Amino acid sequence: MKIMAAEIFKSVEDIRAKSPLIHNITNYVVMNNTANALLAIGASPVMIHAEEEVEDMAAIASALVINIGTISAPWVRGMFKAMASARLKGVPVVIDPVGAGATPYRNRTIRELIHANQPTIIRGNASEIMALTDDRLKTKGVDSTAGSNEALHAAQSISEKHQCAVCISGVVDYIVSGNRTVKIANGHPMMTKVTGLGCTATAICGAFAAVEKDPFTAAAKAMAIMGIAGEMAAAVSAGPGSLQMHFLDILYALSESDVSRHLKMEA
Amino acid sequence: MKIMAAEIFKSVEDIRAKSPLIHNITNYVVMNNTANALLAIGASPVMIHAEEEVEDMAAIASALVINIGTISAPWVRGMFKAMASARLKGVPVVIDPVGAGATPYRNRTIRELIHANQPTIIRGNASEIMALTDDRLKTKGVDSTAGSNEALHAAQSISEKHQCAVCISGVVDYIVSGNRTVKIANGHPMMTKVTGLGCTATAICGAFAAVEKDPFTAAAKAMAIMGIAGEMAAAVSAGPGSLQMHFLDILYALSESDVSRHLKMEA
Amino acid sequence: MKIMAAEIFKSVEDIRAKSPLIHNITNYVVMNNTANALLAIGASPVMIHAEEEVEDMAAIASALVINIGTISAPWVRGMFKAMASARLKGVPVVIDPVGAGATPYRNRTIRELIHANQPTIIRGNASEIMALTDDRLKTKGVDSTAGSNEALHAAQSISEKHQCAVCISGVVDYIVSGNRTVKIANGHPMMTKVTGLGCTATAICGAFAAVEKDPFTAAAKAMAIMGIAGEMAAAVSAGPGSLQMHFLDILYALSESDVSRHLKMEA
Repeated sequence: MKIMAAEIFKSVEDIRAKSPLIHNITNYVVMNNTANALLAIGASPVMIHAEEEVEDMAAIASALVINIGTISAPWVRGMFKAMASARLKGVPVVIDPVGAGATPYRNRTIRELIHANQPTIIRGNASEIMALTDDRLKTKGVDSTAGSNEALHAAQSISEKHQCAVCISGVVDYIVSGNRTVKIANGHPMMTKVTGLGCTATAICGAFAAVEKDPFTAAAKAMAIMGIAGEMAAAVSAGPGSLQMHFLDILYALSESDVSRHLKMEA
Repeated sequence: MKIMAAEIFKSVEDIRAKSPLIHNITNYVVMNNTANALLAIGASPVMIHAEEEVEDMAAIASALVINIGTISAPWVRGMFKAMASARLKGVPVVIDPVGAGATPYRNRTIRELIHANQPTIIRGNASEIMALTDDRLKTKGVDSTAGSNEALHAAQSISEKHQCAVCISGVVDYIVSGNRTVKIANGHPMMTKVTGLGCTATAICGAFAAVEKDPFTAAAKAMAIMGIAGEMAAAVSAGPGSLQMHFLDILYALSESDVSRHLKMEA
Repeated sequence: MKIMAAEIFKSVEDIRAKSPLIHNITNYVVMNNTANALLAIGASPVMIHAEEEVEDMAAIASALVINIGTISAPWVRGMFKAMASARLKGVPVVIDPVGAGATPYRNRTIRELIHANQPTIIRGNASEIMALTDDRLKTKGVDSTAGSNEALHAAQSISEKHQCAVCISGVVDYIVSGNRTVKIANGHPMMTKVTGLGCTATAICGAFAAVEKDPFTAAAKAMAIMGIAGEMAAAVSAGPGSLQMHFLDILYALSESDVSRHLKMEA
């Protein structure tokens, strides 16, 4: 199911116009980049994790983003409470299973989070998505050891079981929901040398989910914009340091013609 | 009450010469930028929050900066202890009520912190300053929903009640202390698209409070330097990514003529 | 004991080829830069600190990096567990005693960590290294108040007592192990104006320790690369903001001729 550049850009304009509040409970490594990427695209990020206030915050957010990168027990308690509050209010919930497969604690936690509260979108790399269904899969830290297409079956089964959209990001991104699939071939290998661009993609999914009701369409639009901004940034960058800077500048100034010129989406 | 560019720059030179130790208990999102901004202006930042050591650290600091952005119970305990230790030793305390008005937990915590230990300077956006006095005010995350001038009355009442300087930052910054007020029209709208420049302003207030005894003057000088460096950075930036980089470069190399050429301060 | 540029670059190529998993339990301020520097040099960083999973992660890592910058009790528990697991599996452990000497809690914690588990490399500034052996030494936050050479005696005694390599970083870096010493005069003063480049050096020591068995050689190679990339970055930077960006770009693209052209190592 292909989406037109004009439709994708319409959601960017909606984000810029509405400045949706995106509540993130994410990891320490990427909080700053994630907040900056959300600001650059026009959203209003907030990072709050304490049990005492996550329910209040998630309830008034336009999307909730849950990322297990640097979890510990108190943060996980906050995640459960925030997700329950979001579901109650109909706030879309986007989940990033960072490092799923790396440790038993991580596997257990992410599965409990997903089972307790139906997510709207799950975005991970191939290893992470596969680890959500396969107990024997051992991953190496937070980097994928498999190609995106290897995780397609896992993504379809997760999508059906939890009635959510699943995004496998990699050289080619796949977005899956029920019997719908779309492939996005945007992006650049240098993006894997900047920490947290995967986490940023998840947060951007949150921004699109705030303005686009269909989870599959929201995830596909978000991944297209991530890939396009990333490859435009890589084209003018000497390395990962400048890529990170240009990525934010490009996201901030992105035009409809940028999207239509670069979009590589296939049904 | 206007302050001359030469006087403002004199404090920058003092910071560069004395390299005051600024103890920050701040939020996860901005720790890196805040530390970098303090280093760029010539101060020596330290970020320490554990109950076991905050009293020792605050006691030898030249200023203490408290920012409630990503609070949780253990951090709040550290904030109380650090503030008490700072007050005992006469170390100036600068407070940033990030997201005040967004949740009851946040409102309760910031009020208790301020009541328990008289702060030297409080800096926030208009919504945050108003939320310190008005229980009914609901804010949207961490971005202001009001203009700076709407918060003037709240700032004056807080300044009188707590005998401190209050800074409302926005398109125009207001600094209030007793019956003194000053307006600063420096800065650039793109600064709101970089996460944590408000938090950075608060930390810079700490650096100035370390070398300038009068809280009102320290806050006004700090906000002038923030606004000037921000607008100089915006003038050479394609977007928020490059703004953040240029901001640090400009702060590092700031000259007296930069200050006198750009300063827009009004009584 | 001098090391040739070709040998140093051989280890860079090994890191790029093997992409070793570096497990970091580090401070909030520098997590993002540290991860980015490890990615730029070709390693695969992971930041995980929870007691529930650090043993599993450290056991499969190629090096463990422990940094006490923003410690609190739960993180220290994670550090002990991760170090014990690493030692059991023969994973090299690199320690950064950030702010040693600044508070009693910090002094006690770092000594207990070092005593409980023999480290492979310890890297700190002169004040921090001296504070590991001298109880009376009071340091000012996280910046050194002594020259590197003043800490040589302390470094030698720590190296003998704990059978590890010790690196004192500063204007000149000293690496000490038993009766071996090497001096590296690379680097640039502007590097001290970017937060966490010391912490980054420690993480880079981890990457080299993952591919180079001798701790002394690993530390010397890592410090040479840090200094060379730092001075190359400073040469094209207007200030500390751009230095941080160029540092990552340069680390990513570093060539053998860069190393041989810039290396200033002396026995």
